[in-house]
Amino acid sequence: MHEDSELAAETATTPSAVPSPDRVPTIHDVARVAGVSSGTVSRYLNGHKWVADTSAEAIKAAIDATGYRRNRFARSLATGRSSTAVFLLTEPQDRLFGDPNYPILLREITTALADRGITLVLMTASEDDERRRVMDFVRGGHIQGVLLVSSHVDDPMTEQLARAGVPTVSCGRPIGWESSIASVAADDRAGARIATEHLITLGRRRIGFITGPLDISGAIDRLDGYTDALAAAGIPLDPALIAHGDWLNVSGRAAMTELLTTAPDIDAVFASNDLMASGAITTLRAAGRTVPGDVAVVGFDDSGLAATTDPPLTTMRQPFAEISREMVRLLTERVPGEAPAVTLPALLVTRESSAAL
Amino acid sequence: MHEDSELAAETATTPSAVPSPDRVPTIHDVARVAGVSSGTVSRYLNGHKWVADTSAEAIKAAIDATGYRRNRFARSLATGRSSTAVFLLTEPQDRLFGDPNYPILLREITTALADRGITLVLMTASEDDERRRVMDFVRGGHIQGVLLVSSHVDDPMTEQLARAGVPTVSCGRPIGWESSIASVAADDRAGARIATEHLITLGRRRIGFITGPLDISGAIDRLDGYTDALAAAGIPLDPALIAHGDWLNVSGRAAMTELLTTAPDIDAVFASNDLMASGAITTLRAAGRTVPGDVAVVGFDDSGLAATTDPPLTTMRQPFAEISREMVRLLTERVPGEAPAVTLPALLVTRESSAAL
Repeated sequence: MHEDSELAAETATTPSAVPSPDRVPTIHDVARVAGVSSGTVSRYLNGHKWVADTSAEAIKAAIDATGYRRNRFARSLATGRSSTAVFLLTEPQDRLFGDPNYPILLREITTALADRGITLVLMTASEDDERRRVMDFVRGGHIQGVLLVSSHVDDPMTEQLARAGVPTVSCGRPIGWESSIASVAADDRAGARIATEHLITLGRRRIGFITGPLDISGAIDRLDGYTDALAAAGIPLDPALIAHGDWLNVSGRAAMTELLTTAPDIDAVFASNDLMASGAITTLRAAGRTVPGDVAVVGFDDSGLAATTDPPLTTMRQPFAEISREMVRLLTERVPGEAPAVTLPALLVTRESSAAL
Repeated sequence: MHEDSELAAETATTPSAVPSPDRVPTIHDVARVAGVSSGTVSRYLNGHKWVADTSAEAIKAAIDATGYRRNRFARSLATGRSSTAVFLLTEPQDRLFGDPNYPILLREITTALADRGITLVLMTASEDDERRRVMDFVRGGHIQGVLLVSSHVDDPMTEQLARAGVPTVSCGRPIGWESSIASVAADDRAGARIATEHLITLGRRRIGFITGPLDISGAIDRLDGYTDALAAAGIPLDPALIAHGDWLNVSGRAAMTELLTTAPDIDAVFASNDLMASGAITTLRAAGRTVPGDVAVVGFDDSGLAATTDPPLTTMRQPFAEISREMVRLLTERVPGEAPAVTLPALLVTRESSAAL
């Protein structure tokens, strides 16, 4: 790699040293324009170490003048420094079909990594041979770490990554591996409490709850937030008002059907995500109940879906951009031996599905 | 890399040659168990070339016995052979929020690439500096090529990739670059014709159409298929029955509102994708029109959404798994100088939104 070779400083300050527009400028162009060696430019690019202030200023100006941009991938391959992160798709196909949060996280994380010169590799990990591929890949080196989304209790992938000491950041607490895997999540418990309190404030007292899969921390925390709010308001917890879902729309419909049987006097329902809330609305309409007149509905996520349901859905907005940036920050600035768990506030977004009458 | 070194053949057939379970087996273990050189195993793994049949059988058995799996990434980095493909997210954030096809394609393509030992890198390319990053990356080598989804006419990324001669496969015809960029798509024109004929068969005669963005080949072809079907049935084309959308739900609602004004006698609507069809249903309900009673509705895609709308949506199913596999096949088996355009049939899936009365 030429970048690291210590060429003698070449002085060149004539405008002709700026490369013509149809050629991609190289580190040598920058060195020539700055009047320093390529090695000095390389050190500057690798963190400003051991570069005199005057040289640094000249290099900075030369980078602007030449329009030089690093090919970070080539550089990292050459230097052996890790500049790849793996994003794992751990959910099976049908879950991905339905979950609008995946593409949002993916795009935000891709951008946040690119800003740090890190390339995102996408891998699936819902079957044994896929998990083997992932471990092969991360053991091969050149890897900054793994970004994990929606890990279930007893997910073998989480266990394998944690046991192998692979730097991993999970979106959502990795139950059982909190001491070795860092995590970022919306404050699901506080968010669910806020959503439930919103319904209580509207005067609703028979508030149903549709859970997510209770082997995922986010789903557990949202259930806890719901019970927190009821307890604080002195409303007794009624098991007839709780039904179970699995995040998907169809499970929201089934849960709502169940709630209409076990608690026909239900006057509100808080579903643990927007997809299930959307299914609940469909079932309520089919049963002749108006939303929000007879039953107010609230979801969680503020995925693209929430604004398009009929009526538009009140929901807790997850700060996906902030979650993504924080996941990338934790991955790239991690301190060995530490596994912080960061939570970010969710925001109540009120729409017609819970409008006051 | 040891794989390519020509070690003398080592014969070893005792069970002790099989590595213990807590160690990852290497190519040398395979060679030892098979009784051939590592070089022979390497040639076998790289396409069975120049390996005697008896050796090939011994190697195959040894791979099974040792549980050997290649770390393809490490191998490709070492040999300099390309084993990375880039999936480009070219749409801005709001489009990704809404389009349920992206995650499906992403997952299918990830799996199809992994089956060939190719790693998927995800990059965004909707802004200038992102496109510069992409070109830096693909020029850095180690790249099998680029997978492009949903390219618009005059998309600068498409032009840059085509001009640079980067092997690229587009999902949907890349308008203006068909001679240099291979593509795979559902047969949008035939599919749209089938959907429209379905509505004609139901006895509908005032059939509205909601377009997608008409700078994308899929959107143009669906409009053509709609007009094909009307012409074949001898139904005059009425511009009052055509409204424009941009794939998103909200544009489907706006287009439906427009159609109800320009063609109040409308008795069916075919929207160019499921998201817009879902928006159209919302608008029809708000206007007091029943679906399918007053107005039958058909979408396109059969994304996860179609089965969850109220009523469930008749739509043209895109063969996403086949499209993904074909894109990967074209990328990996491409013939220099050729840019095939493959179309795969879309399938009519009838649901309640167009049920016969």
